[in-house]
Amino acid sequence: MIENQYLTRIYYRDIDQMGVVYYNRYFEYFEAARTELLRSIGLEVTLIEQRGYYLPVVSAHCDYHRSAQFDDEITIISRIDSFMGARLRIDYQATLISDDRLLASGYTEHCFTNKDGKPTRPPGFFRSRIREHLNG
Amino acid sequence: MIENQYLTRIYYRDIDQMGVVYYNRYFEYFEAARTELLRSIGLEVTLIEQRGYYLPVVSAHCDYHRSAQFDDEITIISRIDSFMGARLRIDYQATLISDDRLLASGYTEHCFTNKDGKPTRPPGFFRSRIREHLNG
Amino acid sequence: MIENQYLTRIYYRDIDQMGVVYYNRYFEYFEAARTELLRSIGLEVTLIEQRGYYLPVVSAHCDYHRSAQFDDEITIISRIDSFMGARLRIDYQATLISDDRLLASGYTEHCFTNKDGKPTRPPGFFRSRIREHLNG
Amino acid sequence: MIENQYLTRIYYRDIDQMGVVYYNRYFEYFEAARTELLRSIGLEVTLIEQRGYYLPVVSAHCDYHRSAQFDDEITIISRIDSFMGARLRIDYQATLISDDRLLASGYTEHCFTNKDGKPTRPPGFFRSRIREHLNG
Repeated sequence: MIENQYLTRIYYRDIDQMGVVYYNRYFEYFEAARTELLRSIGLEVTLIEQRGYYLPVVSAHCDYHRSAQFDDEITIISRIDSFMGARLRIDYQATLISDDRLLASGYTEHCFTNKDGKPTRPPGFFRSRIREHLNG
Repeated sequence: MIENQYLTRIYYRDIDQMGVVYYNRYFEYFEAARTELLRSIGLEVTLIEQRGYYLPVVSAHCDYHRSAQFDDEITIISRIDSFMGARLRIDYQATLISDDRLLASGYTEHCFTNKDGKPTRPPGFFRSRIREHLNG
Repeated sequence: MIENQYLTRIYYRDIDQMGVVYYNRYFEYFEAARTELLRSIGLEVTLIEQRGYYLPVVSAHCDYHRSAQFDDEITIISRIDSFMGARLRIDYQATLISDDRLLASGYTEHCFTNKDGKPTRPPGFFRSRIREHLNG
Repeated sequence: MIENQYLTRIYYRDIDQMGVVYYNRYFEYFEAARTELLRSIGLEVTLIEQRGYYLPVVSAHCDYHRSAQFDDEITIISRIDSFMGARLRIDYQATLISDDRLLASGYTEHCFTNKDGKPTRPPGFFRSRIREHLNG
């Protein structure tokens, strides 16, 4: 298992008319969290792209358990449990820091493409780095 | 089945570094689509809220099939297939207008709350309006 | 003077904790409005970019007069008054359709760059098209 | 002069088709920066709102000097130089951390309203706190 923790704070830009975080904002937090997860194992997204590979999202899911509000500090735990085949799945849990209760949980699935958007197999450097840390 | 069609165009604000629509933007299109779906059967969100009810999202899902690009015109078909119990599920299909091919499909599930965010049963006026159109 | 009118509706995604449109959303409406303004005179942004030119924003301004709310229909009038030198200025007025009162007014200034982001002079096809319509 | 520094990182959600930060995102960074500026002098926005006051933006401006890219770490310096009359002006400078060069500079002007959106004079606790730090 590869795991990382990303902290952020909720600002006005995130809040909707109900006074809580607008539902699609969690997918922005998830993106920041997975970028930091990949960085933590030496797979900066910029380096992946410089080698000619992209990881578009093919599936995204979020379950909303409790609502977060303006000025809340939250943590996003992102996790890779396994990696086989052509797709990468990352799981997320968003938690309110003040009371450690779960706000939202979800996942994204990613495929690999080249610069032209054509699906490719996961590149060797990516596979080996992930597996090294999954078994580490 | 209750169905509605919402048209929109992709602008720069929607596009990311890969030159395609950023993945969380579809949930904004879905929100506009369901607002228009509900309006089409006389359930304006503003009126629902004035009666003291809110429909927060409890679950959101999207599968990405093909990428949309700047200036593309797309249509979002939203659909309610049934409505029983305490939750409302709405399904969405985003299609590129120029070639009628599927871009993304997904759903949102909503519960009902009062002004304080406390879960409530779906109000009678909402239930009856939905059922009337489902059976219509 | 070149002028265009762009209509849009306010959704939940646009609204903040005060129950009004979050201030930076107007710059998204302005972007859609200028894209349609340029399209109306045959200068699709996609075509400009295919010819190797980009129009990044170098200055953006907005004055907020009244607040817009969820479900409001608004119109953005965009306008080019003149075009000399290396920069293009576009002015915007956002108005509530129901009572024709002004919500916000602002402008953006754009320079021209090539694909590498290097500033260039406005291309001939762009200059002549604008001038033709300014004098038309 | 009251000054504060807010650090953030650029993610995919911020980047547009040109590969640089979309222009309206700077106003989100500015919002986070001013929230932290006010917090640093004991004026949490949540506390201000609990006392019944809001600070909507009446004017927003940004000049774009250089473009920021994915994964860049940037700092936003926000600053209050003076405070007289009914409006509060905050100035911002966004700088790339790696080379300390200026990316964007701008300002926002805020008025004070009550819960109903009606303009009010700046409340005493706000005025005195700002002046104490301006003269400190």
